[in-house]
Amino acid sequence: MYAIGIDIGGTTIKVGLVDGGKIINSNRKPTASTPEEAVANIVLQIDALFEKYNLTVKDIVGIGIGCPGLISSEEGVVCHISTMKWHNFPIVSLLKKTYNTNIKVSNDANVAALGEAMFGAGEKFNNSIMLTLGTGVGGGIIIDNKIYAGAFSKGAELGHMVIRIGGEPCGCGRRGCLETYASATGLTRMTKSAMEQHPESEMWKFVDGDINKVDGRTSFECAKQGDAAANSVVDDFVMYLSEGIMNLANIFRPEAFIIGGGISAQGKYLTDKLTAYCEKYCYGYKNAPKSEIITATLGNDAGIIGAAALVI
Amino acid sequence: MYAIGIDIGGTTIKVGLVDGGKIINSNRKPTASTPEEAVANIVLQIDALFEKYNLTVKDIVGIGIGCPGLISSEEGVVCHISTMKWHNFPIVSLLKKTYNTNIKVSNDANVAALGEAMFGAGEKFNNSIMLTLGTGVGGGIIIDNKIYAGAFSKGAELGHMVIRIGGEPCGCGRRGCLETYASATGLTRMTKSAMEQHPESEMWKFVDGDINKVDGRTSFECAKQGDAAANSVVDDFVMYLSEGIMNLANIFRPEAFIIGGGISAQGKYLTDKLTAYCEKYCYGYKNAPKSEIITATLGNDAGIIGAAALVI
Repeated sequence: MYAIGIDIGGTTIKVGLVDGGKIINSNRKPTASTPEEAVANIVLQIDALFEKYNLTVKDIVGIGIGCPGLISSEEGVVCHISTMKWHNFPIVSLLKKTYNTNIKVSNDANVAALGEAMFGAGEKFNNSIMLTLGTGVGGGIIIDNKIYAGAFSKGAELGHMVIRIGGEPCGCGRRGCLETYASATGLTRMTKSAMEQHPESEMWKFVDGDINKVDGRTSFECAKQGDAAANSVVDDFVMYLSEGIMNLANIFRPEAFIIGGGISAQGKYLTDKLTAYCEKYCYGYKNAPKSEIITATLGNDAGIIGAAALVI
Repeated sequence: MYAIGIDIGGTTIKVGLVDGGKIINSNRKPTASTPEEAVANIVLQIDALFEKYNLTVKDIVGIGIGCPGLISSEEGVVCHISTMKWHNFPIVSLLKKTYNTNIKVSNDANVAALGEAMFGAGEKFNNSIMLTLGTGVGGGIIIDNKIYAGAFSKGAELGHMVIRIGGEPCGCGRRGCLETYASATGLTRMTKSAMEQHPESEMWKFVDGDINKVDGRTSFECAKQGDAAANSVVDDFVMYLSEGIMNLANIFRPEAFIIGGGISAQGKYLTDKLTAYCEKYCYGYKNAPKSEIITATLGNDAGIIGAAALVI
C-alpha cells in the first residue's frame, strides 16, 4: 500500500515514497521562499518518484504532509509559520489540482508522533505522547491511534506548558514553559551556566575550552564519566522533563511517552532516570496505569513516515 | 426522556429523576460506610422516585453515576476512593442486577463538566474544560461533546499539574500543583498569609478579627472595597489560575473554560480578570481561536444532571 509522505522543514522539503511504514525512496529540495513555489517543487518531487517506480496517482492511497506552525487539518490549510512567512496557505486544495487522491496535512510534531505510534517506538500502544526535544519542545498526542491536535487542530502545544511560574523567558511571551528547560536549547543554556560556575568541570575539556561548542551531549557525556557539575545539570534536566511528563501523565495517562530529538540518543541512560523520577512522584501511580518512557526509533525518517501515516 | 442521575459524595448520596436536563425531583441519604450498603440505599432511593412518579425501569433511558476518586468507566468499577475506602467496587454490574437498563459511571468532576457542557454554561460549545475550585481543583474535559477522561479513564487530573516547581506541597506528593494555589483551600491559605503580613487590612474586619473565619470570599469581597492587601491576594490567585488555564488552552484549545465551585459566585468580576490575563499571554492567541472563560450555571445540581447526561 504505497503512500507519499512529505516533510516540510525550515530548510528542506523531503518527499518520500512509503510502503507499509518503510521509506522506499525519497528526495529533497531546499524549501522555497513562497508556498506556491514550494508546491511546484513538491509536484516535481512526487512526479520523479512516480516515474522512477513506474507509478501513477492511482497506485497510492494518498499524500500526507507534515509542516511546522499552526495548521488547520480540517481545512487543509497552513495558517501560520512564523519562521517562513506562510499565511493561510491552502496546501491541500492546491495539491489536489494535480493529484486526485486523499491528501491530508498536520503539524510536524503531530505527524512525528503518529509515525512513531504506528511504525516506531509506540507500535504496541494505542495511546502515546511524543515529546521532540530540539530547539523547542514539540508535542504530539495519540489517542486511540489517532492524532489529537486540540479543537480546530490548534492545540497540542505541549512545550508551552508553564512548569515554573516566573521562570526562564519563552519565545511565546510567557515565562517558565517546559520548552525553556527541557529542549536542547534549554539544556545547552543550563550546561553553559554550570560550566561558568565550575571552571574545574571536565565539561571544559570535552568542548576543548570553547563554550560555543556546548550542545545537548556535553553534560550527558561528562556525567557518564563522573563529572559532578555535569551530573548536576543532567539531574536538573531530568527533573524538569519529568515534571512535564507527569503533568501530561495526569491529564492523558498514555501508555507511553516517546522521547525524540537529538537528546533521545542517550537512550536508556536518560529513560531510566526519567522513569525513576516519575515512579517516585506520579499522582495515583499505585492505582493508575503506568506510562512507559521510551525513546523514538524512526529518527529523521519520522517526518516522512508519519506524514504518510496520515493517509494510511 | 427520563433518566436517573446519582451524585455520590463524601457525606451524602443524591439521587434525582431528570428530564431534558432538568431535575424533576431528588432525594438524599448519608453516604453509607460500605459500598454494598450504599448500593442498597441507592436502590431504595430510585424505587421511591419510581413510585412517586408511577414509573418503571422501562420509562427511563438509563442511570448515570458520578463518583469521586479513580473510576474505570469502561468496566463500570470504582477503583479507589481514598477518603471512603472503596476499592475495586463493580457498582455498575451490581446496580444492573436490579435495573435492566443502560448504567454508566464516571468521575464526579467529569460528570459535572458534562452536565455544564450539555445543559449549563457550555451548552453552545462542543469543546470545553471545567475547573471546579473547591477543596482541590477538579478537572473535566469535554471533546466533541463527550467526556475525555484519559486512557483507561484514569486521567483528566487537571489540578495535579505542577505550575511552580518546588512550590507548595500537594496531597499528591508533588509540589506546586495548580490545586495548591487555585483551589478554595489555596486561596484561603494565601488570604491568611496576607492578613498576617498586613494587620491594617480590612480583611480582619470582614472576619470579625477571627482568622479561622477566612474563606474563598474574604479576599474577593475586600478587594472590591479597595483593600490593597486583598487586591494583591486576588491578583495572585488570578495569575495562578490563569497560568493553569493557559497551559490547558495550549493543549486543548477549548472553546470555553467553565469555572465551578464556590469561587465561581464571583462571576464576571473573576472572569474579566482571568480573560484579561490570558489575552495578554496566551500562546498563539492572535492566530489560534480564543477560549472564553465563563462561570458554571448549574451549581449543586451539576452532579445529578451531569450524571444523568452520561446516559442521555
